Amino acid sequence: MLVNAVTVYVKPEHIADFIAASMENHAGSRQESGNFRFDVLQSSDDPARFLLYEVFASQAAVEEHRKTAHYLAWKTKVEPWMAKPREPRWHTIVAPTDPASW
Amino acid sequence: MLVNAVTVYVKPEHIADFIAASMENHAGSRQESGNFRFDVLQSSDDPARFLLYEVFASQAAVEEHRKTAHYLAWKTKVEPWMAKPREPRWHTIVAPTDPASW
Repeated sequence: MLVNAVTVYVKPEHIADFIAASMENHAGSRQESGNFRFDVLQSSDDPARFLLYEVFASQAAVEEHRKTAHYLAWKTKVEPWMAKPREPRWHTIVAPTDPASW
Repeated sequence: MLVNAVTVYVKPEHIADFIAASMENHAGSRQESGNFRFDVLQSSDDPARFLLYEVFASQAAVEEHRKTAHYLAWKTKVEPWMAKPREPRWHTIVAPTDPASW
């Protein structure tokens, strides 16, 4: 399993647009058999900073995600709304070790 | 609900110690009624960088967490093992909106 914690900096005038597009991407991503979580969070300090917390079964599941209509639609829509390039951070899991906890 | 995504930079010689202590803190935290997740992740790029993904029901639940024996034991143990101060980042939740998803 792999976890991508992606920080996204959004132009202030597009915060509402970004939230709407990311909720759609969340809903689609959670239908993927290889996706375990797709949490969309907004910073408490800076409403223009978001964190996407994406948990996948494997690298193959990540590749499948990148081919989906919902991901491609999200990417195309939100890229012009970003204040700077998004910052992905990939992780492996230390805990919880039980797959049922994901 | 509140989510704290905490980045921790660990001295390389204490990575194994940090993992062991954080697994104990994970296990204790998940017993708290106000805790929904306590994921411990290790960076794929830098084995000395960790992300703690902590989800709480409320600010009161966070205050309760900070009084627990497992949190206080973790804090005392790991502070000397950190290469620099940890970086907490607090968030509110955009998605999933269903509390049962947490």
